[in-house]
Amino acid sequence: MTAVDFAAFVDRLAIASGEAILPFFRTSIGVEDKSRGAVFDPVTAADRAGESVMRTLIRDTFPEHGVIGEEFGDESKDAEFVWVLDPIDGTRSFILGMPVWGTLIGLMRGGAPCFGLMHQPFIGERFSGDGMSATYRGRGGDRTLRTRPCKTLGDAMLMSTSPTMFTGDERDAFDGVAGEVKLTRWSADCYAYAMLASGHVDLIIEADLKPFDIVALIPIVEGAGGVITTWDGGPATNGGRIVAAGDRRLHDAAIERLARR
Amino acid sequence: MTAVDFAAFVDRLAIASGEAILPFFRTSIGVEDKSRGAVFDPVTAADRAGESVMRTLIRDTFPEHGVIGEEFGDESKDAEFVWVLDPIDGTRSFILGMPVWGTLIGLMRGGAPCFGLMHQPFIGERFSGDGMSATYRGRGGDRTLRTRPCKTLGDAMLMSTSPTMFTGDERDAFDGVAGEVKLTRWSADCYAYAMLASGHVDLIIEADLKPFDIVALIPIVEGAGGVITTWDGGPATNGGRIVAAGDRRLHDAAIERLARR
Repeated sequence: MTAVDFAAFVDRLAIASGEAILPFFRTSIGVEDKSRGAVFDPVTAADRAGESVMRTLIRDTFPEHGVIGEEFGDESKDAEFVWVLDPIDGTRSFILGMPVWGTLIGLMRGGAPCFGLMHQPFIGERFSGDGMSATYRGRGGDRTLRTRPCKTLGDAMLMSTSPTMFTGDERDAFDGVAGEVKLTRWSADCYAYAMLASGHVDLIIEADLKPFDIVALIPIVEGAGGVITTWDGGPATNGGRIVAAGDRRLHDAAIERLARR
Repeated sequence: MTAVDFAAFVDRLAIASGEAILPFFRTSIGVEDKSRGAVFDPVTAADRAGESVMRTLIRDTFPEHGVIGEEFGDESKDAEFVWVLDPIDGTRSFILGMPVWGTLIGLMRGGAPCFGLMHQPFIGERFSGDGMSATYRGRGGDRTLRTRPCKTLGDAMLMSTSPTMFTGDERDAFDGVAGEVKLTRWSADCYAYAMLASGHVDLIIEADLKPFDIVALIPIVEGAGGVITTWDGGPATNGGRIVAAGDRRLHDAAIERLARR
């Protein structure tokens, strides 16, 4: 698998999944037709179509690779290379027609994330990274992604997906941080990580994440210079409670504040 | 002012404001440089640039028209035709790099909204209406906007901008509705109204809105078949507490539930 082959292959995955998913976005066929006793769920249909086309491409091109996906479970997850796929991260945005969901395509090698792509096919923008560097591709061309410096919670702009992702103590811990930052915004999903890598957001705090929610985003955040771990500083690869920051000093401050409750 | 002239003029307003605003979106020059004692605020700069170019076009083309804008105050607001401008609705999204803000261009005649446009220049999509009909224009061409039927709170998808927009009793009233709906999503701003007009969202409940937050959206929502009023059923034109629904039956149910607290 040479570097050139890999970039071209990821490009095929992004194009094919986008083409599979977009016909379901902002369609009115999503309205439940209860009179017929059946419920058509466009986001599930789009998720399945997107994941299916990516799995086929991976199987045909790299039959020895494993795949972990939201819709169709695990295949060869102990292989050296394992793809981690989430065709639609941000299902709530997708359902409501908001163009801030993304297709997450991650690759792990030996259990560690080594490449990630966040693709928004409706807007036409991609954020990718390999842990060493990160790149944006949009209508304005390509550019390098870099997080921005932000030392303290008091200067930080915080994003998170939903207050309902936190339970009990977690919510208190989150609220402790949210009470100190400059600005908090919800409903971000994968876009929060893309904006952190781009230097527009300083801090993300989430909970209850699955591996396919986060694996693709780790090499993007780290490649742009950010730090992403669990709330106790462990690897983010398995999901759960996640804290990401563009600046290591802010990450330290957030971890400390979360532990204080 | 013929229909053709008007459409072409609105097109010029949208293009010119988009060109004025976009250079400030997702720029890193927004980072405050406190060492120099000065704070550069890109969203204020973009707001001013967008409003300024629209005011100039209006003044040059329709010198007898009035203008109400967020940044530069009121001009001839008792004129027969008054433009109501909000160059960046969704400043929090803009600041964080999220492409779900919009430029709002409304026109009132004799104090009643008669035309509205919501323009998202980064994505390249426009939602417009005249109270009788509403239209989407995006990369896929033009299409007519229609709200979708939704009779009850239990079936409704609800959007609102932020829990912090409600105070005291308002929050209790909002929470009463939110507790009955199928799904609630925050951080929407003008996109919530665009998605309601498009038939993807059923209900919007907000408070503390200014006229320039809402005037442009009224002819879009009404033109798509929706209902938009204050919480007590009055005209939405002056902002304040707003409830919008795609289906009149749902609007009635929401008004009733909001009054119950």
